[in-house]
Amino acid sequence: MSERSDQSSGKPTLALVGATGAVGTVMREIISNRVDVYGEIRLVASARSAGKVLPVRGEDVVVQALTAEVFDGVDIAIFDVPDEVSAEWVPIAAGRGAIVIDKSGTFRMNPEVPLVVPEVNPGDARNRPLGIIATPNCTTLSMMAAMGALHAEYGLRELVVASYQAVSGAGVAGPARLYDEVEALAGDRTVGQAAGDVRKVLQNKLGDVESPFPAPIAFNVVPWAGSLKDDGWASEEIKLRNESRKILGIPDLKVSATCVRVPVVTTHSLAVHATFEREITVADAHRVLEAAPTVVLMDDPGSGVYPMPIDVVGTDPTYVGRIRQALDFPNTLDLFVCGDNLRKGAALNAAEIAELIAAEFAGAVA
Amino acid sequence: MSERSDQSSGKPTLALVGATGAVGTVMREIISNRVDVYGEIRLVASARSAGKVLPVRGEDVVVQALTAEVFDGVDIAIFDVPDEVSAEWVPIAAGRGAIVIDKSGTFRMNPEVPLVVPEVNPGDARNRPLGIIATPNCTTLSMMAAMGALHAEYGLRELVVASYQAVSGAGVAGPARLYDEVEALAGDRTVGQAAGDVRKVLQNKLGDVESPFPAPIAFNVVPWAGSLKDDGWASEEIKLRNESRKILGIPDLKVSATCVRVPVVTTHSLAVHATFEREITVADAHRVLEAAPTVVLMDDPGSGVYPMPIDVVGTDPTYVGRIRQALDFPNTLDLFVCGDNLRKGAALNAAEIAELIAAEFAGAVA
Repeated sequence: MSERSDQSSGKPTLALVGATGAVGTVMREIISNRVDVYGEIRLVASARSAGKVLPVRGEDVVVQALTAEVFDGVDIAIFDVPDEVSAEWVPIAAGRGAIVIDKSGTFRMNPEVPLVVPEVNPGDARNRPLGIIATPNCTTLSMMAAMGALHAEYGLRELVVASYQAVSGAGVAGPARLYDEVEALAGDRTVGQAAGDVRKVLQNKLGDVESPFPAPIAFNVVPWAGSLKDDGWASEEIKLRNESRKILGIPDLKVSATCVRVPVVTTHSLAVHATFEREITVADAHRVLEAAPTVVLMDDPGSGVYPMPIDVVGTDPTYVGRIRQALDFPNTLDLFVCGDNLRKGAALNAAEIAELIAAEFAGAVA
Repeated sequence: MSERSDQSSGKPTLALVGATGAVGTVMREIISNRVDVYGEIRLVASARSAGKVLPVRGEDVVVQALTAEVFDGVDIAIFDVPDEVSAEWVPIAAGRGAIVIDKSGTFRMNPEVPLVVPEVNPGDARNRPLGIIATPNCTTLSMMAAMGALHAEYGLRELVVASYQAVSGAGVAGPARLYDEVEALAGDRTVGQAAGDVRKVLQNKLGDVESPFPAPIAFNVVPWAGSLKDDGWASEEIKLRNESRKILGIPDLKVSATCVRVPVVTTHSLAVHATFEREITVADAHRVLEAAPTVVLMDDPGSGVYPMPIDVVGTDPTYVGRIRQALDFPNTLDLFVCGDNLRKGAALNAAEIAELIAAEFAGAVA
């Protein structure tokens, strides 16, 4: 593939598609702060955003409109766009020779597309017959580095998961809505104490401004994420099951998930009940997770040490705490995981995959 | 027992101990709005609150200080006070002849004290050798009416629970703290996006004002409720296990719970993964729950119908929705339950027990 790189240095040209979105913004920041393995970096967005000037890697870059030609000479393209945009444009970019890392749900379960978490299954990234690599849903990703490390030693068999998902998982409109609602409700020290009163205040103050959520999110939790699938399941819950199975390489992994949105700006949390093939103690889990790259153990509840969104947001690792041996279930741990859904849950994972690919270019030159 | 009642009508004298607290306030309101089965009602609180005048049943009642004598002539005493106050005073009240309904954790697991949810095990209330009846922890209570109904037909075997607990579960200081934090953070449309920024703003604006929570709760979720028990478990998680077993009469019920506080004023929510002895479908669960007294089914996610705190708060039932047949676990449902932790989760359950006892008085007279 090195023949595609414009750089004699072996540094690949990178395109960021969806550079102006919630994840795209974090992606530019992450790429600017990690080891620089790229030649040219192109920023690509919808025609609406074309012409904007945005910083990446300390340079001001003019955003280009999404066209087929924008991928000419591109070695690696990271897509963070809605599913239907990926469905149309990812094959076009791949057809022009770019290796595409796609954040959308479109290709994740395609058997010819690897679904990659570099800490768990980096080797899968090399087997990409379509030139496309998918990166998982942010809720799944928030726990994968930790669960992958435990699986490697103890053999994961079952997962029962309840999520506490941040509003930024719904894109830039999510935090905007939460801030709007909090401003509208602040100062009223009785609100949230009678059925429907939060809805009334928001209706009065925000009117019919559209929300990305199906219900008020301030002073509330909303047990719904995604679209309706068969038999009452939400798409986010099905994704967590299917994607966990594919990433971990456990086709018969038993999974039940309930996905719930909470009034947190950024960082997804998960309560995980995990059953393994082999006996596992809290000490075993501590040993494995302390050694796992990109995982941080925060597990001393007697001293108030456990992961929480406000302490995790803006940082890269997966944080794990509240690890307990289940009292009534053999070979089972209960634990609590937090990960920044825009970083490890999205942009960081894509950047890490891009670096795996960039290393192939460097290797080809060397 | 009718000889203790001052009323020839057979209406027992009731004492509310802890009448000024979060639950006590709701208790006075609930008793005022239900069928009036009591003779005299005495309000009792700490010496600090004695002399206050508070309304109950449309009358202004002067709060009396907690003394042994205050229980003379009392037939039923409902205690909502801290564990250590119950430990000291419940036996004194029972010793003076009152039947005590205690909301604290002190007596719940005492084999001589029944732990009662009227929808589930009303008969247990008659077997009270110490004259004491305990009412469960609010988190356990939030799901008991629903789980009890399902257990009665399908035989519950296992529960994996993750909670979304409201701040009022920590008493009146809980909502006060959440309102304080929301006011301090409102208007800042970047807060919650960098590690520790919420802590900094609150430190600047609220200083060292004491919080009932171990960490900021606005824009956060805190995976901790109660005190540290063996092996990293929180007391609230252990209570949910032990109390569910006792109420449902399933000594070997398998339970794992993770308790998490969320920025909701009032109403606890639970994501429940429940395994039964017999095969159970979503239609089966709908049929059982639609018929269950005090349970409301809200389960049409395609139309945005599922239980949420802002719609449940201030009402009596247990609401159940998001019922799904587990895809990988036999005889298992995943579901979401909401209940007002001050009403069904506390005051209402105690009031319902008091009514069971009052009916004994009425029966004895009749």
